[in-house]
Amino acid sequence: MTEATLTHLDEKGQARMVDVGEKPHTERSATATAIIYMQPETLAMIVEGKHKKGDVMATARIAGIMAAKRTPDLIPMCHPLMITSVKVDLVADMDVSCVNIEATCKTVGQTGIEIEALTAASVAALTLYDMCKAVDRGMVIDQVQLMEKVGGKSGHWQR
Amino acid sequence: MTEATLTHLDEKGQARMVDVGEKPHTERSATATAIIYMQPETLAMIVEGKHKKGDVMATARIAGIMAAKRTPDLIPMCHPLMITSVKVDLVADMDVSCVNIEATCKTVGQTGIEIEALTAASVAALTLYDMCKAVDRGMVIDQVQLMEKVGGKSGHWQR
Amino acid sequence: MTEATLTHLDEKGQARMVDVGEKPHTERSATATAIIYMQPETLAMIVEGKHKKGDVMATARIAGIMAAKRTPDLIPMCHPLMITSVKVDLVADMDVSCVNIEATCKTVGQTGIEIEALTAASVAALTLYDMCKAVDRGMVIDQVQLMEKVGGKSGHWQR
Amino acid sequence: MTEATLTHLDEKGQARMVDVGEKPHTERSATATAIIYMQPETLAMIVEGKHKKGDVMATARIAGIMAAKRTPDLIPMCHPLMITSVKVDLVADMDVSCVNIEATCKTVGQTGIEIEALTAASVAALTLYDMCKAVDRGMVIDQVQLMEKVGGKSGHWQR
Amino acid sequence: MTEATLTHLDEKGQARMVDVGEKPHTERSATATAIIYMQPETLAMIVEGKHKKGDVMATARIAGIMAAKRTPDLIPMCHPLMITSVKVDLVADMDVSCVNIEATCKTVGQTGIEIEALTAASVAALTLYDMCKAVDRGMVIDQVQLMEKVGGKSGHWQR
Amino acid sequence: MTEATLTHLDEKGQARMVDVGEKPHTERSATATAIIYMQPETLAMIVEGKHKKGDVMATARIAGIMAAKRTPDLIPMCHPLMITSVKVDLVADMDVSCVNIEATCKTVGQTGIEIEALTAASVAALTLYDMCKAVDRGMVIDQVQLMEKVGGKSGHWQR
Repeated sequence: MTEATLTHLDEKGQARMVDVGEKPHTERSATATAIIYMQPETLAMIVEGKHKKGDVMATARIAGIMAAKRTPDLIPMCHPLMITSVKVDLVADMDVSCVNIEATCKTVGQTGIEIEALTAASVAALTLYDMCKAVDRGMVIDQVQLMEKVGGKSGHWQR
Repeated sequence: MTEATLTHLDEKGQARMVDVGEKPHTERSATATAIIYMQPETLAMIVEGKHKKGDVMATARIAGIMAAKRTPDLIPMCHPLMITSVKVDLVADMDVSCVNIEATCKTVGQTGIEIEALTAASVAALTLYDMCKAVDRGMVIDQVQLMEKVGGKSGHWQR
Repeated sequence: MTEATLTHLDEKGQARMVDVGEKPHTERSATATAIIYMQPETLAMIVEGKHKKGDVMATARIAGIMAAKRTPDLIPMCHPLMITSVKVDLVADMDVSCVNIEATCKTVGQTGIEIEALTAASVAALTLYDMCKAVDRGMVIDQVQLMEKVGGKSGHWQR
Repeated sequence: MTEATLTHLDEKGQARMVDVGEKPHTERSATATAIIYMQPETLAMIVEGKHKKGDVMATARIAGIMAAKRTPDLIPMCHPLMITSVKVDLVADMDVSCVNIEATCKTVGQTGIEIEALTAASVAALTLYDMCKAVDRGMVIDQVQLMEKVGGKSGHWQR
Repeated sequence: MTEATLTHLDEKGQARMVDVGEKPHTERSATATAIIYMQPETLAMIVEGKHKKGDVMATARIAGIMAAKRTPDLIPMCHPLMITSVKVDLVADMDVSCVNIEATCKTVGQTGIEIEALTAASVAALTLYDMCKAVDRGMVIDQVQLMEKVGGKSGHWQR
Repeated sequence: MTEATLTHLDEKGQARMVDVGEKPHTERSATATAIIYMQPETLAMIVEGKHKKGDVMATARIAGIMAAKRTPDLIPMCHPLMITSVKVDLVADMDVSCVNIEATCKTVGQTGIEIEALTAASVAALTLYDMCKAVDRGMVIDQVQLMEKVGGKSGHWQR
């Protein structure tokens, strides 16, 4: 049995970008989500009334997509990879007063793309915070988590 | 009474970087937190045994600090500002099997530094995810939230 | 009479970032424009019918704002400065089948902000190209130019 | 007949980075141009006399090449790709008092490289503006346009 | 006999990113070193006593790894490539009062990875300088050099 | 007597960006040098004969200037600051077959600018390596060191 290990640490516990050069190029995708809770009045400002057609959701969507591409600049041991697709969806839920964010990234490469999807969802949520903070400082980002990954040696994983 | 508005939108609802040129330069600080939940075995790998002195916590701490400086590159309407201090603390909680992350940023400037603190906490959490994902894909980042801000026209705010 | 000189070259003609440390901090703003010409069918896809509420204009607007912040990374001798405001407007002109782009940037600093405004207008135009290139490769970006600058030693300038 | 569509928008008109994972890796190249018009005295300062051997043209050439590599950071829906070659030529035209800029980029990949060539030409032109703005604020950048593309499913395209 | 040439210059001596599109994708690795000399008291602060378990070495290691990924942003004619592995080792030498830095980078690609390894070693050394400059401004970085490269048309090279 | 400490570490030895918010804004400058040794034939290719007017020196100069601006992105605990001037000089020494690089940076701010000058000199040297590596892999970068700093609480320092 192979013992589970933290691959980005060497035998001395020092950080390294683990060698993936031997791994085959395969199609991979990952979907991550985040939820941002806010005051009902804040959510209403985004989805109806005065700012209905405003750029809030679009700004968060675009920020999430761009952040996926910047992931290796932000996450120290993350390998660069050629993203072939990014999609960020934001859906307002008026009942529990939140925005549900779902990000899906794809690549053909030697490493998984989970961290890119998580980064896209996180930065989309942070952008919503930034766009609304003047009216609601108490917003909370929750459940930033991987929902599914496809491809790679470890295969299919689903929450 | 002034109506609350989303300052990064103009009267047509279009995104803009709101003008802060008239605001005075004042000392500001902000503290944000995030929590990342993981399997007890994962947490144990970080804080004791084999990788006790390993770089996992240090990598997350450094990634959070560097991300604070990259905030205006990530968050579309965020003003650039001169960060004067960043501190990211990570504390393992074995009882509930999580790492508590707290980031504090300071500046002397015309806009608040809340989003920088939230970004630092988020990226530190994402980095922990990246460092441990080979052994635990189900980790969840929760409660990314502002705890306190000091300075600026809106004054002191505390959760 | 002082002879006009290219300030970013030294006496040997070598590039340098000219010293502005002695200049006072003053309020400065600059407005630049760009025009992108396209097929009437392309323009129609953006402003009416199927994609009427689509993200094309928002994506260009946000890209322009973010590019203004990246200007010192792109333009070798450009000084970093603290942008206090960016606004990018895009207006479709159905008569001549183009989109008129206007970018205004402000700062309080030691150097002008003209190049930031020109970069914002250029990148907004390039983003429109990217968003529409699948249907119209022949689009042309024209008249990228400064319209007005205010503040600084050279004072007010208007085209 | 397939209806022409804006590929970076989904069926709801929301921006996404369109999926290119199924497309084959092929050799691709693109050539774009830009023209910057300036006062004859400004052009003379660059190409003859005092600054004849100066760094103005070299600075613009290098800025254009570096900008090609930064394109996915600037253009929100642009896919990252592995540029295999960039060339930026600047030729002064004393008769009409302008500099003609031509940028050619190549890659082997799943998406075209047109936007990289256009970005390289644009940033080279913006850099010339920055280098000369102290003596000539009225310079105009015109005809930023694709001249030719080779490779990819849509094949050869020429203006 | 082929005359040796500077490949990043064209026949007119102008900088270009040389075309590597025809070169095969091969496995490549490169190892570079750097040495930073400091006062014995400075070195002692890093490796023993008060800061024994401190983050100085980890910060330098992580900075070097991240810098390897940023190399094409820093070195104008450097091709982007997909790094598959980075390792940065720092070893204190109390006898000559220095830290020996060794960086190894790997890729599968069309160009060599020497400059990435040299950049990683350099930035790790600069980071040590930054971490210790408050107590020792006179530190010197020496012998930044390639030790070995493997793969590519020019084959194996060793100092 | 105040004990000398590594300011970027807290009392637990954890990396932080030390708080400079209380420090006054003062004029500061720093000069750093680097030397790159190469084969006489390599140096001859840069400074005479075929590539005499080539872009090698200009490319290194521009890369160094741009790197100074990127310093806080590269060096984890380095504060962002507003550089007001950068100058990078490269002088070939045919006698010992090397290029001497000297970088001077200035700012008005709360922290020193030594690390920016050292980064500019290092990246200029690395760029020379990159431009010439096709003909000379054995080049060595030596004596990357601070020569002088002016301003700030610690005052004037000279090697």
